[in-house]
Amino acid sequence: MNKREVPYKIFLTENEMPKAWYNVCADIKCDPLLNPATHEPAKQEELEAVFSSECARQELNRRDDYIEIPAAVRDFYKMYRPSPLVRAYCLEKYLDTPAKIYYKFEGNNTSGSHKLNSAIAQAYYAKEQGLKGLTTETGAGQWGTALAMACGYFGLDLTVYMVRCSYEQKPQRKTLMTTYGANVIASPSETTEAGRRILAASPDYRSGSLGTAISEAVEAAVTSGGERRYSLGSVLNQVVLHQSVIGIESKRAMEKYDEYPDIIIGCAGGGSNLGGLMSEFMRDRLKGKAKPYFIAVEPMSCPSLTKGVFAYDFCDTGKVTPLAKMYTLGSGFVPAPTHAGGLRYHGMSPVISRLYHDGYIDEARAVSQTDVFDAAVRFARVEGILPAPESSHAIKVAIDEALKCKETGKRKTILFGLTGTGYFDLYAYERFLQGSMTDALPTNEALERSESDVPVV
Amino acid sequence: MNKREVPYKIFLTENEMPKAWYNVCADIKCDPLLNPATHEPAKQEELEAVFSSECARQELNRRDDYIEIPAAVRDFYKMYRPSPLVRAYCLEKYLDTPAKIYYKFEGNNTSGSHKLNSAIAQAYYAKEQGLKGLTTETGAGQWGTALAMACGYFGLDLTVYMVRCSYEQKPQRKTLMTTYGANVIASPSETTEAGRRILAASPDYRSGSLGTAISEAVEAAVTSGGERRYSLGSVLNQVVLHQSVIGIESKRAMEKYDEYPDIIIGCAGGGSNLGGLMSEFMRDRLKGKAKPYFIAVEPMSCPSLTKGVFAYDFCDTGKVTPLAKMYTLGSGFVPAPTHAGGLRYHGMSPVISRLYHDGYIDEARAVSQTDVFDAAVRFARVEGILPAPESSHAIKVAIDEALKCKETGKRKTILFGLTGTGYFDLYAYERFLQGSMTDALPTNEALERSESDVPVV
Repeated sequence: MNKREVPYKIFLTENEMPKAWYNVCADIKCDPLLNPATHEPAKQEELEAVFSSECARQELNRRDDYIEIPAAVRDFYKMYRPSPLVRAYCLEKYLDTPAKIYYKFEGNNTSGSHKLNSAIAQAYYAKEQGLKGLTTETGAGQWGTALAMACGYFGLDLTVYMVRCSYEQKPQRKTLMTTYGANVIASPSETTEAGRRILAASPDYRSGSLGTAISEAVEAAVTSGGERRYSLGSVLNQVVLHQSVIGIESKRAMEKYDEYPDIIIGCAGGGSNLGGLMSEFMRDRLKGKAKPYFIAVEPMSCPSLTKGVFAYDFCDTGKVTPLAKMYTLGSGFVPAPTHAGGLRYHGMSPVISRLYHDGYIDEARAVSQTDVFDAAVRFARVEGILPAPESSHAIKVAIDEALKCKETGKRKTILFGLTGTGYFDLYAYERFLQGSMTDALPTNEALERSESDVPVV
Repeated sequence: MNKREVPYKIFLTENEMPKAWYNVCADIKCDPLLNPATHEPAKQEELEAVFSSECARQELNRRDDYIEIPAAVRDFYKMYRPSPLVRAYCLEKYLDTPAKIYYKFEGNNTSGSHKLNSAIAQAYYAKEQGLKGLTTETGAGQWGTALAMACGYFGLDLTVYMVRCSYEQKPQRKTLMTTYGANVIASPSETTEAGRRILAASPDYRSGSLGTAISEAVEAAVTSGGERRYSLGSVLNQVVLHQSVIGIESKRAMEKYDEYPDIIIGCAGGGSNLGGLMSEFMRDRLKGKAKPYFIAVEPMSCPSLTKGVFAYDFCDTGKVTPLAKMYTLGSGFVPAPTHAGGLRYHGMSPVISRLYHDGYIDEARAVSQTDVFDAAVRFARVEGILPAPESSHAIKVAIDEALKCKETGKRKTILFGLTGTGYFDLYAYERFLQGSMTDALPTNEALERSESDVPVV
């Protein structure tokens, strides 16, 4: 083998792993969170009631472009990172494309996704602050599992409000979190005021939603007498910061072989994955050093970027959180019960939203559920890995772009994020293979009705 | 970091990956398989009716100590190998032991275990021979998934006879195999003479057993008009050969840091994992170059090495296979329905059996199910990875050995095989965490009754 030939998997050494996260908020116009009562920018002390102090500081940090990764977090990263940057030779051959396809695979850890990158950081800062524990919500369960692993590692307690329909459909996910010591409660629950109110209002809400679970988890934290804080796995600036490790590693791995992506593709639900994958590539673009083409992929069933409005809105259904400036479908929007649970969120990270609005993220593309699973199965058969439904949104578009290259004969370099594995999504695969999966799209009426709920700021 | 300091994970480069498997049968007295009718050593042409020609040849090869890994198999290996050799720093710290603990982690592929190493080789040789497909059996589903991935990759058809109780308890495993294109049939089934006979004899056998599923899969292959062959994921010499990639990689990874194991620990059901892990370390021992201490760990519920006899016996319940010289509990032995499905086999690889009988494998240790799960949960919390129940047998003994070092103050180097992940075993974890798991051990009477069935050769 020629020394310059790219291997199937590029691993950085421990010494090459990032020692700092990239904070894109230092390089862009970053909209503040607003206090929902006063519509004034949220202050650090307000955020500290909800998040750990360091996380609150990071949330508001517009100054430092790089923030050091604490040694204890770097040590934990070494247990499952660097994640491989894979050259998809088999997929290229299968598609018969001149394109070079790379993917950063974040699924090789027990949480099954990239979520662990931020979970361990948030748990570390809570531990450092002397807190007793954290609270959070989870939908499909990847974030809850990641935070359970992180809290288990640092000896923090954790209460997870799990959307009830997932709680009932995915008992394995609950067991996994319990194995790591978490206390898992089906949401809406009787343990919080928010939960009781929602249950009393309508038994229809019994199956729960992410927005409701967030309301419960935040309430549990702020009423804990200061012993606990709340932790969120996406949307926030701090999460995009922690996830930047994905893109920094990807860039270093590609540089080893003189490669640079022409197209960067990430699925986008709350934005944690795309925000992490783009990181230093976006920095290059902001600094005028390079101009990779960024594509955010979202489900047609929850099209916040492609059909939402760019406005201040609540992050939760119960309207207890600060307002964030983002592309939103309205905090009351209820997406169809599709299988990419991690993408069923009414809003989008303010960072991603701003970059998309200002044209730095070039394109948002909404894809249908059946097309996504078709791509997932084809990918699994040639590349071996069973992808998560969320990740498969990126696969679908990567395949489409590679096939365009086949038409045009252009040898583009494509990088996409393979955020996780689909071991807990086999019911969805079963439905797809049986031909009983549908594409439940929201009507224009439903979208309009929901957006009318967005507050005027 | 000092250059000689061992990282958390040691990865070989692609160029350092093995280009040949180690065939221990060239270096030991290796007992032949016998034709059950004549008690004569099975000939290649007899085995070729069951296995692909090259696999039959490898099964009988006592001459070549190294056998080249075909380029297509090496390419496939590159998609998920080299697997990491992990230095268990966190476990060492948690145990407060002077021991250095290493484990070779084989779970980072969609089949979730080391089984893929042999599956892809067996599928390749079938493809090369121009066969249409393969048949096999699966219990817990790891082997079936691995062979489904391998056959999907090479475009072979695959019929998997899945033990009915697993088929019903683990529908996700079935879906996973189907995703890779396999046809999965619950065993015993009406599709084979062996299945119909067993179903007619007693409805009690409806839940099935590995031994029965083997009978069905072999029958389906030999009655396919020459278009298909049978494939087995453990026990056989060819499987131990293919799995040697585990140990060869481990040894090379340790050599990079001037390390060599004092103790090597592997779980042993059919023997594929321990046989693979020991490979070149055993070669060193056979050649007098080193003397690592080998421990085979088995479940108390299925104690073939510790309570079985060393004799010729059938590999299946239906008594259609050749006779193998091995430690056996009798081919009619039915282990309690414990959760380490991959270790519930009445016999043991003839290679492992011979090495144990002749004292090269120093010790066999039987451990109880609840002790194993206790070790699994502790391991998961400190090392992050959720281990498979099978793998956790090795974890249990590795922890015990590390704690012995703590008592004696000896700084031993321990290597164990972490064969796979427990994503599909969460029901078992749930039972353990709830305190409702039991240790169902066989009575001496049951063991004696079963062994009386071993043929006198």
